[in-house]
Amino acid sequence: MKKLINDADTVVGDALRGIEAAHSDRVRVDHEHHLIIRADAPVKGKVGLVSGGGSGHEPMHGGFVGRGMLDAACAGEVFTSPVPEQMQVATAAVDGGAGVLHIVKNYTGDVMNFEMAAEMAAEEADVRVESVVVDDDVAVTDSLYTAGRRGVGLTVLLEKIVGAGAEEGRDLDAIVELAKKVNGQGRSLGLALTSCTVPAAGKPTFDLGEDEFELGIGIHGEPGRERKKLAPASDMAQMLVEPILADLEFGGDVIAMMNGMGGTPLLELYLMYGEVTKILEKAGVKVARNLVGNYITSLEMAGCSLTLLKADDELLKLWDAPVNTPGLRWGC
Amino acid sequence: MKKLINDADTVVGDALRGIEAAHSDRVRVDHEHHLIIRADAPVKGKVGLVSGGGSGHEPMHGGFVGRGMLDAACAGEVFTSPVPEQMQVATAAVDGGAGVLHIVKNYTGDVMNFEMAAEMAAEEADVRVESVVVDDDVAVTDSLYTAGRRGVGLTVLLEKIVGAGAEEGRDLDAIVELAKKVNGQGRSLGLALTSCTVPAAGKPTFDLGEDEFELGIGIHGEPGRERKKLAPASDMAQMLVEPILADLEFGGDVIAMMNGMGGTPLLELYLMYGEVTKILEKAGVKVARNLVGNYITSLEMAGCSLTLLKADDELLKLWDAPVNTPGLRWGC
Repeated sequence: MKKLINDADTVVGDALRGIEAAHSDRVRVDHEHHLIIRADAPVKGKVGLVSGGGSGHEPMHGGFVGRGMLDAACAGEVFTSPVPEQMQVATAAVDGGAGVLHIVKNYTGDVMNFEMAAEMAAEEADVRVESVVVDDDVAVTDSLYTAGRRGVGLTVLLEKIVGAGAEEGRDLDAIVELAKKVNGQGRSLGLALTSCTVPAAGKPTFDLGEDEFELGIGIHGEPGRERKKLAPASDMAQMLVEPILADLEFGGDVIAMMNGMGGTPLLELYLMYGEVTKILEKAGVKVARNLVGNYITSLEMAGCSLTLLKADDELLKLWDAPVNTPGLRWGC
Repeated sequence: MKKLINDADTVVGDALRGIEAAHSDRVRVDHEHHLIIRADAPVKGKVGLVSGGGSGHEPMHGGFVGRGMLDAACAGEVFTSPVPEQMQVATAAVDGGAGVLHIVKNYTGDVMNFEMAAEMAAEEADVRVESVVVDDDVAVTDSLYTAGRRGVGLTVLLEKIVGAGAEEGRDLDAIVELAKKVNGQGRSLGLALTSCTVPAAGKPTFDLGEDEFELGIGIHGEPGRERKKLAPASDMAQMLVEPILADLEFGGDVIAMMNGMGGTPLLELYLMYGEVTKILEKAGVKVARNLVGNYITSLEMAGCSLTLLKADDELLKLWDAPVNTPGLRWGC
């Protein structure tokens, strides 16, 4: 295992010290609970947004804390759900009196722990908490760690858009409605060329032949739809686009994200994005906004995922609103 | 070789189509000459900034084209210098009447071709061209492809700062002086845990044992100072910081970049950045601004590099000035 770490057991805590050193202008770090919190939280009268999950997917979620996006992110151990206590402390820390939304990716552990945290926060701190579960991955229904579809790339877009809604002062009911709307209108699919290695495991999560890739991979290396022989990028782009378009009617404008899994060069992500846009154009789908880069990763896995979100004027306006986080920044 | 490409021979052209599709709000692409050009170039009365080099280091240079940074980037084949004709066309395209600066990383091919392009531009288009050669890598003097020190991470910081200077209307002589100042005040050093694979070669550039890393690696996989046994991140951070601090007196404020080589997770880059800041603090060096992420890469190489730049008030002010490029964006 070749990694820039001190010890497999201290990876997350050690990385949080680096995040604090790099971004103390925008966030503070609770080292006891492994939380990244917006520097000026709680923001009075604003709905607080809390997300989190296993580490190893950076910049998600900690890199999306800041003005116009999340108020706090709970960092679990690598590929392991944070515990309810972390989530509860985060919820209390960002409650500005308007309630808190938990943004939860659909993995059994995350869903269960966020539910428990919401109950604890309601009982102990009298905070009104609502949740939205993101389940955008069209690859498979039910999976290792998941009942139903997995939550993947759409989480990034949802955190941006809902973050903008909270920033402009929408109340908790409106924020819940907005989050559900985004989740209903977005779909993702990914593929992997190589496995990643969880530090505590010390060896690759799975094996793939030298001429194979896995279509529909999960962000923790969960099995996808099928293993296939390597193909030209234009064909692989087709294999990502088709199941997404088959799953939901995508006429009109979309926000598209060509996301890297962590170990794929940006050169290849741009190349794939070029292939995807050619296919979308033929299908009458217009990309109104886009992201190309590493936004929700799986450590050093090579591969990519595509996310499409149907975007009306409301969503585009919220997308364009200022955001100031380590991972996404514009307008400020 | 596992890559998201169509054909090893068309990688750069195919990726440029993706860059155009993703960023046509900010840049235009000259497909004949493989150029990425600021959408509103030439900007009348502004010094034009042209850089370029082999592809495979994205987001550098194409991702740094836009307001407040470069006016054009010339994309060579992977790890291969662009040719003089590309550079000449780029120079003519961005000349707004105030002359053009070529920002050249110190590799023999790049230096020679940019020199030839400058002569051609002066003769054929009557453009005044000046050059600055970046040579910040303390690893080795003379190397595969280089006489003198290699140009690496400092190029990113220089393009940002000089870009801000050009944007505020400084003339070509002042811009040359500023570029030389930045180059004189910055140093870098990198390390690799794995090799990368150039598409046209189809196999890894070099081999490294399972328990080894290479200190002082070049961005094309050129040999560094020595091969060493893997060590804790705290020790590896020390091995990056010490030679840099030994090479130049770094009292006071610095801009620091913890750069990923392309295949290293952001989690590890933050961890390394945390270790680096601990060492710098003990040495009395204060990080006033920082970047942590993939800015000058070597395809999918695992590893990182550290760049430190002594920063006075002038450089910090230029650093903070608005920039709107695909790879670096703030203030707009």
